[in-house]
Formats: sequence, C-alpha cells, structure tokens
Amino acid sequence: MEFTGIGIGEGIAVGRVARMADRIPDPPEDARTVDEPAEVERATRALVAVGEELRSRGDRAGGSAQEVLEAQALMAGDPSVLADVRTRIAGGRTAERAVHEAFAAYRELLASLGGYLAERAADLDDVSQRVVAHLTGSPAPGVPEPGHPFVLVARDLAPADTALLDLERVLALVTFEGGPTSHTAILAREKGLPAVIGAADAEALVDGESVIVDAARGRVVGAPTPEQLAEAEQRIAERAERAAAPVAPGRLADGTPVALLANLGAPDEAVRAVELGAEGVGLFRTEFLFLDSQAAPDADAQREAYTRLLAAFPGRKVVVRVLDAGADKPLAFVNDDEEANPALGLRGIRALRRSEGVLREQLAALAAADAATSADLQVMAPMIATVEETRWFVGLCREYGLESAGVMIETPSAALIADRVLAACEFASIGTNDLTQYTMAADRLLASVAGLQDPWSPAVLRLIGEVGAAGRRVGRPVGVCGEAAADPLLAVVLVGLGVTSLSMSPSALGDVRTRLAGVGPRDAERMAEAAVAAEGADEARRAAEAVAPGSG
Amino acid sequence: MEFTGIGIGEGIAVGRVARMADRIPDPPEDARTVDEPAEVERATRALVAVGEELRSRGDRAGGSAQEVLEAQALMAGDPSVLADVRTRIAGGRTAERAVHEAFAAYRELLASLGGYLAERAADLDDVSQRVVAHLTGSPAPGVPEPGHPFVLVARDLAPADTALLDLERVLALVTFEGGPTSHTAILAREKGLPAVIGAADAEALVDGESVIVDAARGRVVGAPTPEQLAEAEQRIAERAERAAAPVAPGRLADGTPVALLANLGAPDEAVRAVELGAEGVGLFRTEFLFLDSQAAPDADAQREAYTRLLAAFPGRKVVVRVLDAGADKPLAFVNDDEEANPALGLRGIRALRRSEGVLREQLAALAAADAATSADLQVMAPMIATVEETRWFVGLCREYGLESAGVMIETPSAALIADRVLAACEFASIGTNDLTQYTMAADRLLASVAGLQDPWSPAVLRLIGEVGAAGRRVGRPVGVCGEAAADPLLAVVLVGLGVTSLSMSPSALGDVRTRLAGVGPRDAERMAEAAVAAEGADEARRAAEAVAPGSG
Repeated sequence: MEFTGIGIGEGIAVGRVARMADRIPDPPEDARTVDEPAEVERATRALVAVGEELRSRGDRAGGSAQEVLEAQALMAGDPSVLADVRTRIAGGRTAERAVHEAFAAYRELLASLGGYLAERAADLDDVSQRVVAHLTGSPAPGVPEPGHPFVLVARDLAPADTALLDLERVLALVTFEGGPTSHTAILAREKGLPAVIGAADAEALVDGESVIVDAARGRVVGAPTPEQLAEAEQRIAERAERAAAPVAPGRLADGTPVALLANLGAPDEAVRAVELGAEGVGLFRTEFLFLDSQAAPDADAQREAYTRLLAAFPGRKVVVRVLDAGADKPLAFVNDDEEANPALGLRGIRALRRSEGVLREQLAALAAADAATSADLQVMAPMIATVEETRWFVGLCREYGLESAGVMIETPSAALIADRVLAACEFASIGTNDLTQYTMAADRLLASVAGLQDPWSPAVLRLIGEVGAAGRRVGRPVGVCGEAAADPLLAVVLVGLGVTSLSMSPSALGDVRTRLAGVGPRDAERMAEAAVAAEGADEARRAAEAVAPGSG
Repeated sequence: MEFTGIGIGEGIAVGRVARMADRIPDPPEDARTVDEPAEVERATRALVAVGEELRSRGDRAGGSAQEVLEAQALMAGDPSVLADVRTRIAGGRTAERAVHEAFAAYRELLASLGGYLAERAADLDDVSQRVVAHLTGSPAPGVPEPGHPFVLVARDLAPADTALLDLERVLALVTFEGGPTSHTAILAREKGLPAVIGAADAEALVDGESVIVDAARGRVVGAPTPEQLAEAEQRIAERAERAAAPVAPGRLADGTPVALLANLGAPDEAVRAVELGAEGVGLFRTEFLFLDSQAAPDADAQREAYTRLLAAFPGRKVVVRVLDAGADKPLAFVNDDEEANPALGLRGIRALRRSEGVLREQLAALAAADAATSADLQVMAPMIATVEETRWFVGLCREYGLESAGVMIETPSAALIADRVLAACEFASIGTNDLTQYTMAADRLLASVAGLQDPWSPAVLRLIGEVGAAGRRVGRPVGVCGEAAADPLLAVVLVGLGVTSLSMSPSALGDVRTRLAGVGPRDAERMAEAAVAAEGADEARRAAEAVAPGSG
C-alpha cells in the first residue's frame, strides 16, 4: 500500500501512525432540550473538565506552549461564556449547541477587534471543539499523544496545532492536503523532519499502523515488507553517516562554488547554523525584535542583537533584511488597521517609507554593529516593486555608511525589471514564497488554493531565470532565500537558472550540499531549461528529474 | 496656476469648482458632559434632522440613490442607536462623542457580519459624520450641490460618494489622491467625464473658482486667462464635432484593423455601445445576473439575458466572461466566507471548479442563446493561472458545443506561459487591472498603494508584450479588456505590443479611434519598445509620448 504526495527534503523515517482527529461537526441547530437544569449541569461540567485538562497539559508542556494552553483554560472558564451558554440552553438549545454558539459569538467579537485578539480566535475554536467533544464523547481534536514516537498524519497542520506539538516525539509528517509552501512544509524544513504532504490517499492510514515516510521519493509506504523496511533502515543509516561527516562549502561537481547560507530569525540560531555548515547568513529576519511591541524597539536592544549575530560569523557574509511589517505580520506602529488584502497592501518597503524613522533607527543600529564586528554585513529591503523604491532604500543605506545594499525580489514586477533594479543596488535575493504567491495570484497561507502555490510552476521559474540572467548581465550576485532553496532538486534548477547562492533552514543544508555535488553546471542548465519549458509544476519537476545526471 | 495629475481620457471641460467636504475629525474622547438631559436632547434632535434631510434628498434623487438614502435615514432613526447614545451620554460623553461611538459600535457589528451588511458599514459612517457635522455646525460631508453644473474636486471618490452624485451636473472630476485604476478613474471612463486624478496640489482649489480641466494633458488650470479659455472652448467644440461624425471601424494610419469593442455589464447597455461605434463586445460581465442572490439565477433568466445581448450584435463578435465570483464580488453560493486575502483566494475559475454545476448551467444558457441568434459568441474564463485550468474550461465548453473558448490573462503566471495557454484555447483577453494588481502586488482598490497601480509600469507592459508575441507565434488573437485600453496613448502602445483588439467603456471609443488613426504599425512598435525599456511607469508614458508621431 503506497501513497504519493509532495516530499519535503530528502529524509526518510519508519514509525507508527498517530492521526490528528478531524474537526468535529457542528452540533445540530434543531435539537431541543427537554431538561434545562440537567443540560446546564452537563455544559458546566464539560467546561470545567476541559479547562482542567488544558491546564494540566500546560503544566506538562511548559514554555510558550504552556502560555497558549493556560490562555485556553481561561477561555473555557470564562464566566461570560457560561452565562451565555445558560441563556442559550434556557432558549431551548442542547448543551452541545449552546456551547458551540456561545464560543462562536465570542469568536466573532474577538475577530471584530482585529490584531492580536483576532489571531486568538482560532484558539477559541479549539476550546469550543474540545468542550463539544467532551459532551458528545468524541475523540478530542488536536495533537495526539500516543505515548511513543510517532508519524503524525493530519489533514493539514495550522500554526495553532503545531504550537502544542512535541516535536521530539514526531518522526515524520504526512498530510492529505496542503502544498509545498504550506505551514506543514515550512515546519518540516525548519525542523528537518521528513514529510510527505498533499498525499490525498493517505487518509486511509489508521492509528498504530507502521509506515515508511520516504520524503526523497514523495512516498508513504503502509504495511511495509521486511525488504522495504531493511532498505529504509539502510538509507537512514547512510544519511546519519553523511550528516556526521565534516562539512565542506557548497560546490557543483566541477568545483563551481554555490554558497550555502542559513535563514535565521534570531541571533541564538547562529550556533546551530554554523554546526550544520552554513557559510554565512542569506536571510536574517529582524521581525523578532519588533513583535509583541506597540512601538519600535530601542536602538540599544537592536544594536546588541545585530552585534551578537554578526559576531557569530567573523569574515562571513551576513544578509540582514530590514523590518518586513505587514501582510501576515502587521505591526501597530507601521501598518494600517484594515486592508481588504493585506498581502497586496502597505507592507515591507512601502510601510517603511511611511515610517522612515523606524528604518533609520534600524540602519543606524546595523551600522554600529557592523563597525564593532568583522562580518561582511549586507542589508536588504523587502517587497521592492520599482527602481524608484530601490534608489530610495540604497540612498538611505549610504547615509549610514552601509556599503552593500540589496533588494528582495518578491514581486513579479521586480523580477521583470531586474536588470534596472540590479543596476541600482549591489545584489538581489529572491523570496520564492512571495514571488510564487503573486505570480500565481494564490495566497500562500490559504489551503483552498494550495495546488497553485508551487515554486516549480514554469512561470515562477521563468521569473527566477530573468533575475539570474539580469544578474549575469549587470554583474551582480543573485541569491534565493525562499523555501525553494531547501528542495535539493529545485536547488539544482535554481543554480541552472543563474542563482549564485542558496539560503535555507540550516537543517536542509546537508541534503542540498550532497545533491549539488553530484551535478555539473551544464547538467544544472539542462535541468533548468527542461523545467521552464514544461506545461505545469508537476511536469517541470518530472522534466528536471528526467534529465538529471544518473536518472536514466 | 496649474496643477498636474494623471489625465483620464482626452476630454476637456471648463467650469466652477465645487469641493467635496473632507471627513470631519473624530469628536474628542476626553470632553465631558455637564448637563446630561440637554445633551440627550441635542443628540436626538440632530439624529431626527439628519434622518429627515436624507429622506427628502432621497425623494428628490429617486432611483437607486433613493434606496441608499432611505436606508441611511433608517440608520439615523434606529432606536437601538438612540438608546446607545443615551447610555453613553449618561456615562459622561458629549452628544458628539456619544453619536460617534454609537455608530462606530454599530459599524463594527455590521462589519463582523460580513458580506452585504459589511458593505453597508461605509454608509453608516456617512450618517455618523452627518450627525456629528450637524451637532458641531460643520459643513456636512458628502456630495456638494451648488445649484449649477460644476467641476467636482475631492480627495478621492468612494463608491458611496458617487452613488449619490448627480452626474448630469458634473462637468469634470479632479482628485488629490488615487491612481489610474481608482474608482474615480473608472467612473470617469465609464461616464466619459474628463478627469485629472492624483493632482496633489489641487487641494488649493476653492469653491466657486473657475478652472479648465484638461485630461488630455493631465492638467488643471486655475484662474485661466482669456486666451487659455478660448483655446479650451475651441478644443471642446472640435471634440463635439468629431463625436458627431459618422463612426468608422478602428484602424491604424495604414489601414491595419484594430477591432474596437465595448465592455458591458448588462444587455441594456448594448444600444448605446452600438451608437458609439462599438464593433462588438470584448467583455460582457455576467455578474449582474448573480448579484443580490443567495443562489444561482435560473436557467431561463440567463438564456433570456444572453439572447437579448447577442441579438443586439448580429454577425458581430461578442465575448462573454463566465461568472467571476470572489475578491471584491463574493457570492454566498460559490465563495468561502472568510479569506485573509480574497484577491489571492478562491475566485474566478477556481471558485467555478468547486461549483461546476453553476458553470454548466451558464454554458448551457449561453449555448441556447447562441443557437437562437447570429452573433459570433465567444466564451472566456476569468483568473486562469495554469494550462491545466485552461484545458478543463475548454473541455467543458466543447461539451456544450461552444466552439470559441478563451481565457482572461490576469495573473502573471498566465502571461508568462501564454504560449502554452494559447495553444490550449482559441483566444486570450488581457485584464490589465488585475494583471497590474498582481504584477505590482498592489491592491487595485487600496489608496495607500495607488502609486503602484499603473498599467504603464514596464513590468506590466513586458507581460502584455509576452502575450502579444505568444499570440503571433501560436496564431491566436489577443485582446485587452482592462482600463488600459481606454487610455488613447496606452492603446497605441498595446497595439505595438501585439494586441489585436481593444475593449473599453463605450464612451472611450471615440478618443481611442482618433488616436489609433494617427499612427502606423511601426510607430506603435517604436512607442511600445520605448515604454518597455523605461525605468518606471511615468518614464514609460513620457518615453512613448516622446517617440509618438508628431511629437517633434
């Protein structure tokens, strides 16, 4: 029994299935209560029981998971929810339905308040589901805890699900839905977990069953034979051996260097990146300094954080992206409250132009950290769409003595006029997640259009090729720092399209390094040409595989 | 005194300024009431007065404006609003502040309900502003009524503003903000009104002042000299003469045909389009049949409407776009409730694939109308991003015997793989509004990113050129049916990029026809090359003008 899907990374794992319970259906609206006091009693007990369970799970989990679970326990015990449940039961609703409606009303309220509170609406949903499950005797939704390491099988994973996931016990991830830029895929790459996603037929897998999750081949094997198990174990051992070998810089088979860099979100992540062989940092996101604050962080805190980061990479390249506020990460002090389509709104460089003071402070802190360390600091701007924006950003960097200023290529516009954009700055780094989102006009976080969110789409590859060609013409380096760089086969295609460095989650570095070492520059170009000429994303992937060295 | 902005169309007008009052500031939160009963009395009177004024304006306006104004009068008289105002005054608020807060709370509530009700939130804002203006003795916001024909000068116009506008009395439009795809620009093109938009300095204009609005030159002239007035009057007379001349089909100077077609939103608009010389219909939007309904319209109503449309164009081309639900026009029976970015969500062909029955019914009705008339019916699908979607749509059209099936090119993806898309269907029509939105990653309805929403952006022009070139290579016609086609200079550039037909608001046909007749095919290509090579949108416009015939 085999299921195919999109493999994330080159990993392979063997283990037992634990399924994430599906969302339970809404309790029927037309059921009527006969015994009102008994229903109120049932509802009250269920709310208390779920609150206690959440609290005790929080105690066990600790850390940020505990905070989330504590907050959920408070939601379950909220007196206004209980009061609303009572009123609804008095109006003839069953306990299940009353709980469902009361939480839904609460959710509407939170959602209407916007911002942080609106984001908590999903947590409220989870509590509501748990209470209804308790009342109906259904399995509670959410993360399974089978008591042994497991292969997590789910429809798709939302951030709220994975916040509570004990990743130490997860061997691999399998989903029926979701695309290569889904939250599940990103999580898998970040944590170096083997994953097969969008494997529709894997819905047949049941709890406790043994499976092989073979990400390299995009395959899940149910009820494996002893031969299949032996092969899997051997490949697991080989990968462990390769991972333990001393790390060399990224190169093609003929020695052409392709710098392999790390995507980091906080200075603390630098140590592990160096251990895994990162030759520098291709994308340092600075949002962590700004989150949870109503105002910009102070200059000292910024300087200290940047200095700590740069100090971890003496003599190495470190590319820092200035604040990318907006879209999925709005900040009260730079973004507008309400936009119909935040992904197409005032984000990135657009928001910074309105809050020039925030950018100036950030550039000043970066310049100070640069002066105090020996790293090769490069600074780049997010969401560039025009040459005019590029000139504005580069001009500001010069004012602070920052000599290497570049741009993220995330909009189709920036890719299509890359020659003019690159002539106005020092380098470009392609953000393939957003570039795919805009090229396909498909929200990268929306499951119903996940099928379109594929960086293998020939249109996306063509745009990357445009940037690569422009880089060669104008004499500027072109990197990729999106999820695409972490897909070993796609990494080769990117190099074939003219990309000169690849930046990714540190855990993906090993597999990409191995794959690059097996191909020459002409192989990579041939694979890129085949992919760009294909009809769609799946065909592009197959076309690249078909002409890869050793494939036939 | 001259102000420059973006001119819409080639029109010119002379008249007196009437300014749209700016939004009045929120009443201060910290003012405190001393005399509670007096404040309640003041608030009550203001609510009643505004309700009466809205009702009497509605009686005068009639039609759909009356409906909007009646609804607003009901909002002003809503007892729950008055009750809330009382409570807030009892809590120490002033009448102004209490009214402001009560309507804001009501607005939040409506907004949280989504859909049609959420759209009414802006009307509620208008009522709130009127009541507060009444209380503070400020000029009421909204549409001016100076009692004579006027040049409307505003920051920017929202749909709610223009619903109440007596367009018969408006000579021209001038705005300080907004871009070429703003609501104001679209309205100006639809109604054939001269407009200069985004003229920041025009904020200096005052009520009653005489101005010349010269859309052809993107210029507003304040305090014009007698010579300037005489020149303007002469140009107005010349345009009137040209408009009265018999209408010929669209051609370049050498006789190369460029079909000039109409964009229509309802069958009733066909008569006027034919009068203005439309050679057919390049975009018939079918959404009008589906709006205000919770379910798809019945098959008979659809067949009747399509037959009426096709009967108006015997022997002529009529391109019908199947239902484009989603983004700014969600429909309960095909779209999902909540998407973070509806413009990047399940819209157009994506939504139809989930509701295949709706599409099948529409195709069946179209096929029946086609059989009953002699028009050359062509059917096209919105929001195509892949070849696979194209094949699915064309396959379905074939099942219903529809022989000419094409696609809208609105996503960068479809433009970048246009050769493969066109090989799988009969024609393409470029929707420049959405194509610009996705290429620049800038919401076409969002004022804060209006500067990026320019179809003159070299990146957008490159994509259009890609489609034109693919059309020639594969032997398929390529039309444009977005706002860009109605800009006479840009229309020439589009032809130079390989576009073979242009579809627009019928009122724009005359100016585009005149402009095309003045250039040869090589001129158009030269202008296109100059525009594509430019650094940004403004430079592209100037570059095309600089190499246009007769520009010196």
